[in-house]
Amino acid sequence: MLSRKDLFKDTLRKAAHAWKRIIELRLSEEEAHMLRSYVDQPAFTDLHWGMFIPAIKGQGTEEQHEKWLPMAYKMQIIGCYAQTELGHGSNVQGLETTATFDPQTDEFVIHSPTLTSSKWWPGGLGKVSTHAVVYARLITGAQDHGVHGFIVQLRSLDDHSPLPGITVGDIGMKFGSGAYNSMDNGLLRFDHVRIPRNQMLMRVSQVTREGKFVQSDVPRQLVYGTMVYVRQTIVSDASCALARAVCIATRYSAVRRQFGSQNGGPETQVIDYKTQQSRLFPLLASAYAFRFVGEWLKWLYADVTQRLQANDFSTLPEAHACTAGLKSMTTSVTADAIEECRKLCGGHGYLSNSGLPELFAVYIPTCTYEGDNVVLLLQVARFLMKTVSQLGSGKKPVGTTAYMGRAEHLMQCRCEVERAEDWLKPSVILAAFEARAFRMSIGCAKNLSKFSNPEDGFSELSPDLLEAAIAHCQLIVVSKYIEKLQQDIPGKGVKRQLEILCNVYALHLLHKHLGDFVTTSCITPKQGALANEQLRLLYSQVRPNAITLVDAFNYTDHYLGSVLGCYNGNVYQRLYEEAWKDPLNDTVVPDGYLEYVWPILKQHIRTARL
Amino acid sequence: MLSRKDLFKDTLRKAAHAWKRIIELRLSEEEAHMLRSYVDQPAFTDLHWGMFIPAIKGQGTEEQHEKWLPMAYKMQIIGCYAQTELGHGSNVQGLETTATFDPQTDEFVIHSPTLTSSKWWPGGLGKVSTHAVVYARLITGAQDHGVHGFIVQLRSLDDHSPLPGITVGDIGMKFGSGAYNSMDNGLLRFDHVRIPRNQMLMRVSQVTREGKFVQSDVPRQLVYGTMVYVRQTIVSDASCALARAVCIATRYSAVRRQFGSQNGGPETQVIDYKTQQSRLFPLLASAYAFRFVGEWLKWLYADVTQRLQANDFSTLPEAHACTAGLKSMTTSVTADAIEECRKLCGGHGYLSNSGLPELFAVYIPTCTYEGDNVVLLLQVARFLMKTVSQLGSGKKPVGTTAYMGRAEHLMQCRCEVERAEDWLKPSVILAAFEARAFRMSIGCAKNLSKFSNPEDGFSELSPDLLEAAIAHCQLIVVSKYIEKLQQDIPGKGVKRQLEILCNVYALHLLHKHLGDFVTTSCITPKQGALANEQLRLLYSQVRPNAITLVDAFNYTDHYLGSVLGCYNGNVYQRLYEEAWKDPLNDTVVPDGYLEYVWPILKQHIRTARL
Repeated sequence: MLSRKDLFKDTLRKAAHAWKRIIELRLSEEEAHMLRSYVDQPAFTDLHWGMFIPAIKGQGTEEQHEKWLPMAYKMQIIGCYAQTELGHGSNVQGLETTATFDPQTDEFVIHSPTLTSSKWWPGGLGKVSTHAVVYARLITGAQDHGVHGFIVQLRSLDDHSPLPGITVGDIGMKFGSGAYNSMDNGLLRFDHVRIPRNQMLMRVSQVTREGKFVQSDVPRQLVYGTMVYVRQTIVSDASCALARAVCIATRYSAVRRQFGSQNGGPETQVIDYKTQQSRLFPLLASAYAFRFVGEWLKWLYADVTQRLQANDFSTLPEAHACTAGLKSMTTSVTADAIEECRKLCGGHGYLSNSGLPELFAVYIPTCTYEGDNVVLLLQVARFLMKTVSQLGSGKKPVGTTAYMGRAEHLMQCRCEVERAEDWLKPSVILAAFEARAFRMSIGCAKNLSKFSNPEDGFSELSPDLLEAAIAHCQLIVVSKYIEKLQQDIPGKGVKRQLEILCNVYALHLLHKHLGDFVTTSCITPKQGALANEQLRLLYSQVRPNAITLVDAFNYTDHYLGSVLGCYNGNVYQRLYEEAWKDPLNDTVVPDGYLEYVWPILKQHIRTARL
Repeated sequence: MLSRKDLFKDTLRKAAHAWKRIIELRLSEEEAHMLRSYVDQPAFTDLHWGMFIPAIKGQGTEEQHEKWLPMAYKMQIIGCYAQTELGHGSNVQGLETTATFDPQTDEFVIHSPTLTSSKWWPGGLGKVSTHAVVYARLITGAQDHGVHGFIVQLRSLDDHSPLPGITVGDIGMKFGSGAYNSMDNGLLRFDHVRIPRNQMLMRVSQVTREGKFVQSDVPRQLVYGTMVYVRQTIVSDASCALARAVCIATRYSAVRRQFGSQNGGPETQVIDYKTQQSRLFPLLASAYAFRFVGEWLKWLYADVTQRLQANDFSTLPEAHACTAGLKSMTTSVTADAIEECRKLCGGHGYLSNSGLPELFAVYIPTCTYEGDNVVLLLQVARFLMKTVSQLGSGKKPVGTTAYMGRAEHLMQCRCEVERAEDWLKPSVILAAFEARAFRMSIGCAKNLSKFSNPEDGFSELSPDLLEAAIAHCQLIVVSKYIEKLQQDIPGKGVKRQLEILCNVYALHLLHKHLGDFVTTSCITPKQGALANEQLRLLYSQVRPNAITLVDAFNYTDHYLGSVLGCYNGNVYQRLYEEAWKDPLNDTVVPDGYLEYVWPILKQHIRTARL
């Protein structure tokens, strides 16, 4: 209920307090990250720690590390990550800001040549950051060497005023009443701003004193390693956000009763309605599925890192495609699922204190940042088409595309389901998902081959390619869930519940994408109907443990921030109490009544046609 | 950017100004409605004119009309519609508030016996309304006669304070930063509040001086006529809201460029990407489709009204099911589509000044009010099952279910498509949609017959029944669009464009629900692939006229309220100018900097582990 200014000031207060505690408690970097994440509100510190420092670490030389990192770690400077421009987002190579080397002064001149080259969106830039890593086209002589990173001071460390040549400000209000409005996403223009040559991040490329552009022998693939890391954390975060929404919707569905009263007894809990179960339980299953695939991605990142250190780049393209696809798929599903959970809470889900509106507002940018979800899926599709094209060549597909090596089998296999319960076998599910993903990829490849120009084909068929990429990503999640279930899982009966949810996850996808499975002849219409029948039975099995399954996420009421999702289920009392806290209830007669409403009530109308 | 109090006060100001103009210009009721709708912000007047007055008109006696309507028309009293309770929404018959007749004083005693019986959500109730139509269980003697409406004064007309026994207030913040936060959705509790007997709305039922409950011979079906009216307006409004979002996304997609620059030329307009087209153009087509079905519903309402006046109730159940289904289907699609349009605008869609966040926040309650969308679809499903069960009985299905009369044909027909262009024939499309809808209903009916208790079956199979209901509703929209195209349509080439959009609408649904069509053997997988091929060709035909097709909605920049959707396409300049208007940009150094950020920057840390 705060105005933008008050909200922003309050965020500065919280960030300062978090910092004070981090120092007092002598927290490690990882602990500090966790503390900030529990503040649970976007703030400039996210970018300082999450983007500014890692960019210097990843792209800076050792000298640069020594100069900048100690100041940054002590927050004697505060930095942000100025990449995106007003006219340029996904296509980083299209950025327009220039950094022109001036050999006379040994400086770079940073400049915004057009309106669309204005930096736009960087968090922390608008009002707080003193420094930024700025991405700009490096120009030496008359030559354009593409986009590189530069450390640029933006504001005076004395009075916080912008340095000469720098125009900087906030880009304005965003979705929701809180959400990212606590963040000073900013705009930034340069008018020939000069920085010393040694503020170009020079780990991978350098400019010499003479203005010569030199590339070091640091493998460029290293950059993909970082992407794998960042996207892996996004997948884990997706699971957390989804679990939060599902926890609220599930608990409230057990409290809320509607219709079905018999003989004056209480009405039916809405969680007992199959329509509610068929929308809610697949989301519950997805929260668990994304958690497990997130855990696996952590392993994948460790594996990739180890290989990179041994100069083994063989699995990197596959790992990159896999994390790109999973980032896209899990965040898109989670964004939609949060809104679905809001709908599952009926009218009261629309109240801010349900927690769901702001959870949605603060989550949805995830679908855009760190790679737009559609652009990422197209990258996956490209990788799949490349993998298909190499199938005959003897080059074996690795990792999550290994199944494509069994091409002949996947094209010929038939689903063996005869009764509904056959769909409970992991091998049956896996076979169906593998065959579907593979046949969709093959279908696309066949259609692509009809085009004389492959790029025209890729562009024309891109909607189909997206669907093939999604099928592949869904297969990854299903297969990693099944792998998880092959391990020991502690806790009596826990594994059984996770198996049920695994089947719910797979069969709801099968039902949702029935057209894919049937038109590729992976399953028959009859088998599809049996899957649907089995799915309904599974819902009945989830129901008795649904509350326990969301309690297991272990969110405190404080963190959950939802009246509808409170642990003890005392929803109506809390809704009633919360209502009175609205500022409109400060006075019996609202501000504006005497000025605007009273004259209406007391008027004497003679001329109206109403 | 306003606080809740300021936003609310500003809404009172706007409502008062609108009222002043309505009087000055001597507007008719319809003109006044239009003026208010262009204020384009939810306000208490919506409920006064849209619910309070119609409730008295529809359920009050002539005497009651004479007493209350003149005051209401002059706004000497301001009313709201107090039906929903904290624990009761969709199930009106479950309301708990009581109105007990006291024969000694000839009064009703209105009372809230439980916390969950608190009225909750009524717009205009929280801070403004002086009166309400309150729905409560009528009790005479010891007998409960179900829910009826009562006119209750809530606040003093002198000082606006709540009358004795009445607790009233605002329920708090809702989704978004503006949206319904301009509305005082309220809570209301009664502690034995007495009203005269003649304040029960007595058109349909009466309580006599002696406390006898009497039902008049006014047909109860009349109430359905009103529902048909209200829901028909919601369908038209859905088309308007969808058109607004599509207009923004389409115009911006033509401005935005990303990737695909060749030889240093400009990048590709994102509207030229097939992935963008395949998401955007079906929504454009839907906006037109909903408009035409909305126009047809207007005719349907007129037809129903005429029949009701002639005591012909034969088409009422079908008309009721049809409007319920279309309300549900069009509003669900529109809510999702507004968010999809936001995504289609990339990162900038997340800015408030894109217009899309608040359009979403203000639109989504439509999926809940006037009948929860899932509950409504289940009503449609019930009607379909009833229609199917009567097929052999000689009772002919009417109106939008007339196709079910051709049962034998629909079960046997085969789709004739051999080439992609065969999918352009309206008869082919219609046949496929009819067969699919019918076979899905028949499939549900067959599965239902396996249950010994039909209610158990209905409940167990409800997810499938929802899908059958959606298939039926989609058929209605497709068939009404096709009917529209059989009429004269003025304007050179306009009809051709509308035909293309009609095909886009139908074929994108066919692709989305391919599983339905194929598993019911309405079409073959091969025919499904041909439809998809044709769909891609159609997108290329929409592209050259896409901008004209959204310009045709004729929204002014002012009403559209979107920087991204501005008519002249000068998006980046306007984004830049708008940014500076944010209050955070009032000062160079933000509030809170000195207090919270400066101490961090100037600290000397010695003990940190970071």
